[in-house]
Amino acid sequence: MTGSLGRSTPVITALGGGHGLFATLRAARRLSTDVTAVVTVADDGGSSGRLRAELGVIPPGDLRMALAALSAEESDISIWTETMQHRFGGTGALAGHSVGNLILAGLTEVLGDTVAALDEMCRVLRIQGRVLPMSPIPLTIEADVGGLESDPRVNRCIRGQVAVATTPGKVRRVRLVPTDPPACAEALDAIERSDLVLLGPGSWFSSVIPHMLVPEQLQALIRTSARKALILNLAAEPGETAGFSAERHLHVLAQHAPELTVDYVVVDSGSVPEGREREHLCRAAMRLGAAVIYADVAETGTATHHAGKLAASLGSLLPTTHALSASDSTLGRESTSWQ
Amino acid sequence: MTGSLGRSTPVITALGGGHGLFATLRAARRLSTDVTAVVTVADDGGSSGRLRAELGVIPPGDLRMALAALSAEESDISIWTETMQHRFGGTGALAGHSVGNLILAGLTEVLGDTVAALDEMCRVLRIQGRVLPMSPIPLTIEADVGGLESDPRVNRCIRGQVAVATTPGKVRRVRLVPTDPPACAEALDAIERSDLVLLGPGSWFSSVIPHMLVPEQLQALIRTSARKALILNLAAEPGETAGFSAERHLHVLAQHAPELTVDYVVVDSGSVPEGREREHLCRAAMRLGAAVIYADVAETGTATHHAGKLAASLGSLLPTTHALSASDSTLGRESTSWQ
Repeated sequence: MTGSLGRSTPVITALGGGHGLFATLRAARRLSTDVTAVVTVADDGGSSGRLRAELGVIPPGDLRMALAALSAEESDISIWTETMQHRFGGTGALAGHSVGNLILAGLTEVLGDTVAALDEMCRVLRIQGRVLPMSPIPLTIEADVGGLESDPRVNRCIRGQVAVATTPGKVRRVRLVPTDPPACAEALDAIERSDLVLLGPGSWFSSVIPHMLVPEQLQALIRTSARKALILNLAAEPGETAGFSAERHLHVLAQHAPELTVDYVVVDSGSVPEGREREHLCRAAMRLGAAVIYADVAETGTATHHAGKLAASLGSLLPTTHALSASDSTLGRESTSWQ
Repeated sequence: MTGSLGRSTPVITALGGGHGLFATLRAARRLSTDVTAVVTVADDGGSSGRLRAELGVIPPGDLRMALAALSAEESDISIWTETMQHRFGGTGALAGHSVGNLILAGLTEVLGDTVAALDEMCRVLRIQGRVLPMSPIPLTIEADVGGLESDPRVNRCIRGQVAVATTPGKVRRVRLVPTDPPACAEALDAIERSDLVLLGPGSWFSSVIPHMLVPEQLQALIRTSARKALILNLAAEPGETAGFSAERHLHVLAQHAPELTVDYVVVDSGSVPEGREREHLCRAAMRLGAAVIYADVAETGTATHHAGKLAASLGSLLPTTHALSASDSTLGRESTSWQ
């Protein structure tokens, strides 16, 4: 189940959650017709949090976003992608619920299994790939946060993804509850047979690092022969990583998963100024075993990745057998530069 | 757009709502691959009532039931039929909502049009036919009800489908609010080009008679060259028609639509004892221009129509060109008898 030689499309697995994963998937689908999304399942806010609390289902929001990112673009499907992403308005009991979250919750109740429900959604949305949860059970994020007490050395335990993501304190460490959650077997298989595994971008403590906290999944990430690329955020997020340098993002990741190595760190050239900051970033990346790749991957004027630019950059990381498919694509690679 | 000669399948339009229409549609789909359901849109109870009040959409429940009755039976579709009919449990904000109602409401908001949303649902459920609302706007049922005051001659106005359906009083007359609602143009077209139009069974005052209270639709029913069959309930319903004889069902229908004639009244042989009751029923039917057809159409031991038996009975009412397709069916007609 390893290796890629002779296959016509590269196998790509993207790990993350929320808008960050959405951006990666929009890029990955340009490079491959075998993309697996592995999605955090620790959300406790908004529509997802309400469904999780009310029905006991895995919070569906990030899964729904991943489905939307990978769904076919023909008009008969795009009506359904739009409907899935549509949120009810007003001030009633449904306000804020997205239709796709409700469909996923209902289908999961009917089929009795989240992965079966996701596979069925992939089928009807004609997705060439798969969307999987990182664990078959809903998880909770807990963080040690400093700076909330008058004594700066004292940490407080903050619980829940929304609370962690918005804390005014400094997040030191996150963990999952339960602490040793089961992995999703299909996700382990995807990581193992991948040519390229993508981590991030996204809310660092609540969407990216949690993937290293599922023990079996961490082992699969360590063991896989795939190339691994960590995609850095374009800007520090207010809340959980406010004021974090690019280097510090790597440090906290390494702190949570000391045995993990990655091959590449993909950084938007505009987001890290040349000079000392790049030197620090380079050193931090080397500790992870990674080369830093600077490329113009931003949607101009935003803090969002541009699917075409990111695809061009990621395409250059594929094993040689598949590198062609990246350069074959209609996307320019002129903005990708190795530094 | 009239006539049926030379067409390979008879055109059938079924008017009603709720479980009654569901039963008719399960029968009609055995006779035709061109079945149009025209559905009441005055529900104000349960999941439908909540969606109508919260989002301003047409109450979707009866439309969803009609979609479920006509959806393809292959396993890839039946998962979705089951999911549409699935209701969330528990005690939270979603409890009692069926997934299909939420999908229909969301799709209607996205497409901006109920008929477009229903057509899209028909497409994905591979329905050979169409499901339409009897009016493009949500309607309200209002009834004059006697027996609620100490003076039995005094009527009170009762408003709302649930209130009318469950009143302990005697319903004298129902009307729609607004009183002159627009019809659904596509429904008028279906009635006009039909070979067979089916009315009922169902909650008489709240699902069947309202179809005669949409002026343009009543005119289409009067004008069509289709054969028209009124399918009587197997038993009087507690609430709105408690204690009603079969004959009285016809009387109140005629009261609400004096110009309407029908060709057949389909009656379960087990539900009307031979003798005086049948004589009265025959007289009432003659006033509508109809012959009474007695047939065994009940699901044994229940007050529900049996799809196969009802199909056999209705098949015999089709114009000769199409009667073959009914007798060709795998359903026995042995229990159908004209009396």
